[in-house]
Amino acid sequence: MFSRENSPPQKPLVANWDTLFKVFLQPEDVESKKTLIKYMEQILFGLHDFLKKNVGITEEISLKEIAKEYTNTHIHKTPQKKLTEVITDLIQNIAPHGVNIASPYFIGHMTSALPFFMVHLKTIAAALNQNVVKIETSKVFSILEKQVLAKIHRLIFNFDEIFYQTHVQHADTTLGCFTENGTIANLTAFWAARNRLFPPRTGFNGIGAEGIHAAYRAYDVDRCVILVSRRGHYSIKKAAGVLGIGNDNVLDLDVDSNQRIDLKKLENTLEAIKLLEPRTRILAVVGIAGATETGTVDPLARLAEICARHQIYFHVDAAWGGPTLMSEKYSHLLDGIQHADSVTIDGHKQFYMPMSCGMVYFKDPRALESIAYHANYIVRRGSVDLGIRTLSGSREANSMILSSALDIMGTEGYALLIDHGIETAKWFAEEIKRRKNFELVSRPELNILLYRLFPEHLKEAFDRGDSEEKKQIHHQLNRINQRLQRLQREAGNSFVSRTTLRKGPTQKDETDEMVVLRAVIMNPMTSPAILSKILDEQEFIYHEKIAGQKQ
Amino acid sequence: MFSRENSPPQKPLVANWDTLFKVFLQPEDVESKKTLIKYMEQILFGLHDFLKKNVGITEEISLKEIAKEYTNTHIHKTPQKKLTEVITDLIQNIAPHGVNIASPYFIGHMTSALPFFMVHLKTIAAALNQNVVKIETSKVFSILEKQVLAKIHRLIFNFDEIFYQTHVQHADTTLGCFTENGTIANLTAFWAARNRLFPPRTGFNGIGAEGIHAAYRAYDVDRCVILVSRRGHYSIKKAAGVLGIGNDNVLDLDVDSNQRIDLKKLENTLEAIKLLEPRTRILAVVGIAGATETGTVDPLARLAEICARHQIYFHVDAAWGGPTLMSEKYSHLLDGIQHADSVTIDGHKQFYMPMSCGMVYFKDPRALESIAYHANYIVRRGSVDLGIRTLSGSREANSMILSSALDIMGTEGYALLIDHGIETAKWFAEEIKRRKNFELVSRPELNILLYRLFPEHLKEAFDRGDSEEKKQIHHQLNRINQRLQRLQREAGNSFVSRTTLRKGPTQKDETDEMVVLRAVIMNPMTSPAILSKILDEQEFIYHEKIAGQKQ
Repeated sequence: MFSRENSPPQKPLVANWDTLFKVFLQPEDVESKKTLIKYMEQILFGLHDFLKKNVGITEEISLKEIAKEYTNTHIHKTPQKKLTEVITDLIQNIAPHGVNIASPYFIGHMTSALPFFMVHLKTIAAALNQNVVKIETSKVFSILEKQVLAKIHRLIFNFDEIFYQTHVQHADTTLGCFTENGTIANLTAFWAARNRLFPPRTGFNGIGAEGIHAAYRAYDVDRCVILVSRRGHYSIKKAAGVLGIGNDNVLDLDVDSNQRIDLKKLENTLEAIKLLEPRTRILAVVGIAGATETGTVDPLARLAEICARHQIYFHVDAAWGGPTLMSEKYSHLLDGIQHADSVTIDGHKQFYMPMSCGMVYFKDPRALESIAYHANYIVRRGSVDLGIRTLSGSREANSMILSSALDIMGTEGYALLIDHGIETAKWFAEEIKRRKNFELVSRPELNILLYRLFPEHLKEAFDRGDSEEKKQIHHQLNRINQRLQRLQREAGNSFVSRTTLRKGPTQKDETDEMVVLRAVIMNPMTSPAILSKILDEQEFIYHEKIAGQKQ
Repeated sequence: MFSRENSPPQKPLVANWDTLFKVFLQPEDVESKKTLIKYMEQILFGLHDFLKKNVGITEEISLKEIAKEYTNTHIHKTPQKKLTEVITDLIQNIAPHGVNIASPYFIGHMTSALPFFMVHLKTIAAALNQNVVKIETSKVFSILEKQVLAKIHRLIFNFDEIFYQTHVQHADTTLGCFTENGTIANLTAFWAARNRLFPPRTGFNGIGAEGIHAAYRAYDVDRCVILVSRRGHYSIKKAAGVLGIGNDNVLDLDVDSNQRIDLKKLENTLEAIKLLEPRTRILAVVGIAGATETGTVDPLARLAEICARHQIYFHVDAAWGGPTLMSEKYSHLLDGIQHADSVTIDGHKQFYMPMSCGMVYFKDPRALESIAYHANYIVRRGSVDLGIRTLSGSREANSMILSSALDIMGTEGYALLIDHGIETAKWFAEEIKRRKNFELVSRPELNILLYRLFPEHLKEAFDRGDSEEKKQIHHQLNRINQRLQRLQREAGNSFVSRTTLRKGPTQKDETDEMVVLRAVIMNPMTSPAILSKILDEQEFIYHEKIAGQKQ
């Protein structure tokens, strides 16, 4: 018990060995066990009640108001709260100011409701607290991880049974690895690609050992570049920055009208580099399978063909779209992914796993050899210690969660979710087109689409306006949509995100930047009826709070 | 239900919308709620019963035998198991082949029993599934994270109240960040240090943008080095590899007889670089606060003084030892840490949090500005999106767990654990010295120590032997201790790890490498009685299975 102001005086909490033993030892008596279970009940259903009450995103209290309550920076010497108080406080006072990402009205980001069993599985992982960096703190969970890595590798690359029997439990090969998230997965892929591009040679000990400067000198290189469309995730630039390649050396290529990489532009860029920049190396071409902003998929098969022709490393960022491979109906959208050298897939996105779980897979089971690290106390040579070939050190057994989820859902179960997302997004796009006050900006290829509020009278004015008037309307629309998104978020009934899109091929004029609304349809509870209501609300907000006001 | 061979035929599981809705929707009826709670009971207490039954580390079944059962790499189309079966399977068939890191007889690694409330807190994090990369998917949890970062920052740097009031909720400054683990924390520190060492200047856009090669050319530099004692964690080399600095450029300095960095050697190295290598920059000097192998703490205050004098970035790797700051009795061991530019501390180590939680703190609240990344859809400029200044993208709200744990434990509660570890390790060292068949190799400064089995008759032979005989006994001891550690682990009653230590200042002869046993005392249940039994078992194994056999 801790005493708050105005509450009756209570016995202060003390830290002593008695309490400590009770905290560490699982309780033996029936009463204590009941209490612990009661806490879990509060967690599972107390939170649930909150989620039911708060259909919207958050309560209205503003960020700055909330922040004022979180400014005490002292750690108390004595215990301040019992577990029951902490849980009650979290459920009653803190969670209501969190974000109800589980709401079917929350269609703004790549975070959604979890199947409830995921919470149980995460609890098991926490209770066992295995550390899969090494076999000595994980044993079977490292072996299970190798198995699930092989399963997803097979889903992507689909090699033959002999290949998988050889590698599934091979101590010296690695079909992929679990990472904290897609950012680290992409980073790992480029790390491996970078190290393979500059292997040891006479007088040079390899880029891992000697660094980039020495590597470039040994190989007569001035810079390395990564080529990706301008729809590439920002983590690609971040990875290039971290790896010492330089984020300016991530070349953003233009997209075509379908938001896919412009292949002609890519070919021209490759040719130009070959002809004009003999001291530039191409580290990788990246294909996107489910762009963060538009959900679009690059033409992977053609990218693979181009990369093969030029002998360039081909990475696919399928952090979002990867699980589409489980859908018989839509897996063809990712055709060509099997030719990639490496593939990023996130577990906490369309595998519906709890935060945080990324993965990266390599076609060549020895690709990660170029980034192996050893130490005498762990990750010893020849062991199956998974930490030998990962960026991470200590790491929880997330693979167990994915392995269990695959057993519970089957590819069919996941396919239901995937298909629902894609088909509901298609319906939503049609509905947007039907409404006079909206404009569809990007067609949904997977389950993400962009649109904007574009009031009918402005459409007419735009159509008949000269270029100066068009420009003014463009800016007005940007302001309207920015305001609309904020007002809807603050109203707390639903949440659609926004982004600023640079449209199509490079345009240097200032109307290039378009503010758009972004919908991500991944919650199976998100129905056409709900999407209609979200559009209704946007029209309502526009008419009540934006139209007529000076923009 | 799924049908196994030899079990009665059952209705096959199918994936359909009905099931899917039941899986995603929290159950409404009393019966389903009861079932979900029953599962949690199984998880909390079914696992507990296993932990009680299996005092030792794992069952005897060997790794290769286990691996044979994890070779199916097909993902089934239809669901194979219900949640209840998955949980039962995990508890009955899989967990028993995991590692019982919670046993007080498991003193081999930096992973231990968790206070049971940690499992509840992790469950809450999973149930809320917030993503703290951005405020729009976390809101209050980002604010809570900033608060707990300030609390630990204060524990380390102890600036005044005005400083913390200014920064605790400041949108543009960052006192630190949560990372997946200590490896990523160290990497983040060097990343920031690297980028600050090569800022933009005329004709150069900064190392983040242009990369290392361009940076070195702009600054007339050939290489950067990181200086750390040879007790440094392997993640430091890994980070140097990733960052393009080159892991050969991590210079391993010798240690003194107490396993601490040799300050004279450090000063000499700094002077030599200054005099002889004008094109070498020193990126950072690293002080270790709790070496992985020996638990020793470098003389941080003197390191700080040297770094200040030479104007060198000073990083402290306190992944292990950081929480010692909460002990009134022993915090003095880390004196000088407050002068560091950055400090790594792990949550999953001596904060007793579940896997995986690392942290890194910066004295300068603007230090992370040099690694900031933005995108239009998230982590927008000027927002409090935490993902702007982290290596990671999507990330779970681990900060909530630490924040709650600090409330529940207080510094006093944690200090009990810290003090117990240090004092029990001291007792253990004395006991090792008392026993005729052992040798203490490193004195415990914190709660880690190294020792080896050194049979009495070999001690006598060693003392009177010539250099050739000494060498032979040295090798024999290495074989004995390697074998002993393996046999004890396989017997499954207790677990002590081993490492290969290069002793003291550089010795080029082959007796430099010593195989030693390593004990990490962090479990409050690990008592002198248990430690005695572990030594007894080692002597028993030696006499029964090693002595007399050809080594």
